[in-house]
Amino acid sequence: MDLLVVGSVALDSVKTPHGSVNEALGGSATYFSIAASYFTHVNLVAVIGNDFPEEHLLFLKGKGIDLAGLKRQEGRTFRWRGEYLDQMNEAKTLATELNVFESFRPTLPPAYIESPYLFLANIDPELQWDVLSQAKRPKLIACDTMNFWIDRKRNALVKTLGALDLLIINEGEARALACRDNIVCAAKHILSLGPKTVIIKRGEYGAVMFAGDTVFACPAYPLESVCDPTGAGDSFAGGLMGYLAQQDKINDQTLREGVIYGSVMASYNVEAFSLNRMRHLTKRDIATRYQAFKALTAF
Amino acid sequence: MDLLVVGSVALDSVKTPHGSVNEALGGSATYFSIAASYFTHVNLVAVIGNDFPEEHLLFLKGKGIDLAGLKRQEGRTFRWRGEYLDQMNEAKTLATELNVFESFRPTLPPAYIESPYLFLANIDPELQWDVLSQAKRPKLIACDTMNFWIDRKRNALVKTLGALDLLIINEGEARALACRDNIVCAAKHILSLGPKTVIIKRGEYGAVMFAGDTVFACPAYPLESVCDPTGAGDSFAGGLMGYLAQQDKINDQTLREGVIYGSVMASYNVEAFSLNRMRHLTKRDIATRYQAFKALTAF
Repeated sequence: MDLLVVGSVALDSVKTPHGSVNEALGGSATYFSIAASYFTHVNLVAVIGNDFPEEHLLFLKGKGIDLAGLKRQEGRTFRWRGEYLDQMNEAKTLATELNVFESFRPTLPPAYIESPYLFLANIDPELQWDVLSQAKRPKLIACDTMNFWIDRKRNALVKTLGALDLLIINEGEARALACRDNIVCAAKHILSLGPKTVIIKRGEYGAVMFAGDTVFACPAYPLESVCDPTGAGDSFAGGLMGYLAQQDKINDQTLREGVIYGSVMASYNVEAFSLNRMRHLTKRDIATRYQAFKALTAF
Repeated sequence: MDLLVVGSVALDSVKTPHGSVNEALGGSATYFSIAASYFTHVNLVAVIGNDFPEEHLLFLKGKGIDLAGLKRQEGRTFRWRGEYLDQMNEAKTLATELNVFESFRPTLPPAYIESPYLFLANIDPELQWDVLSQAKRPKLIACDTMNFWIDRKRNALVKTLGALDLLIINEGEARALACRDNIVCAAKHILSLGPKTVIIKRGEYGAVMFAGDTVFACPAYPLESVCDPTGAGDSFAGGLMGYLAQQDKINDQTLREGVIYGSVMASYNVEAFSLNRMRHLTKRDIATRYQAFKALTAF
């Protein structure tokens, strides 16, 4: 089934203890789309400037991603510059150039309006709400957010949460959103705001999903070398939502399997800079690591 | 099979956001013994002062723990005073009174020398080595340690590690011991120092076990309220080692199950101050939470 994502396409300059890249392909919608493309057909809504390299468009098209919603606009593409220090837990943002992303007002092309699966990547919650009002009865609406919106647009965010099926959020952001330190309490509070399911991403500690009284915990894949954590969360969301759209069935079992597929995609993504590892992934790679998650957790 | 533990028996004064206790029963060997007592017969080697309350001895005896190795000595019992702040991740030590523990030189009673399962709780690695030299061909030797010894007695600790089957250690301590940030690299380095297996405790994020090329990850049980984290690590070790001694079989499967039983005991322990929750546990409680771990991790 069609999976629609609305978010950013960017050029990232990233430095980690393992090296650096300059103006490499990045952006939440990019990581999400590529991860999801291994499972289902993706419709991408984002904006790029007229400086956006043609090779990146060819790469996205090559993965079967529909670009009718990728608007090219006069100006420069969104750029982000960041650095990860030794522990690789958090990016230090060195520069953000919003450029064409600053005036981004997502408009769904007519062919996208009935996409049954919808992911609102981390953008202004007012824009997320605007997308929701354009979409027609999606089967599953999921979104991500960040501290910036929790701090500055809490009311708009809470309005969006009320319409959600699934919130995918970082641990620190879950605590900030719920104003609770204990993660179980934070999850329960978030569920009371609307989403039927909340999935909390914990970086190298994996992810934990709460829905009703059910909890599912999944570790991160143990990697000897994390080259670049950029895009891990969006790759996770892409693997998860891609799998759900492929199965076209949403229940405890498919959600659990989806969390594992999300973890598989995130674990591959961090093995190289930008989307360089996901670029060359095979379905067999994905199946192999899924089995590795079985071995990692079985008792 | 008999399980021997050498460590501390203490009186703890602890404050957390949920309340406080004053001079309550504590100590690494105490938490370990009580947790293990649900699985197997425990021999306890530690020292107490002549002020140690009789009721605590009755409690330990009531759980079937052999106290022939619990030496009562002129002076005051080891006391620790600490506080946990909001996030409950790390104890802030306010006062440590070693008292009789300062001159503790563990001597195994003759009946203990052939205990096939041996746990060296967090004490001076020179004393750990001394205990090893008294023990006769145990089937499994495990130990814990802490930053204090890693910083100050690294050579003695490395000597002890060379004789170990299993090291059970906190995440931050594993990093410090291995001088490596990445936890997979840290574990591999520790394995190269001698232990066949290393289990890294990650607090609210669970535990991860490394042995050869095998990795097993287990989440912590999601609790809405952590009352007092004191003794969680020793309760974990007690549940794990108690189960291994009960099964009297050490392989990948029993180690994985042991990690779950350890997590079960740790999760109960933190639900109340001191040993108050473990005091009243039933075998049925343990079986119920073990099944909850199945539900928490199955996919």
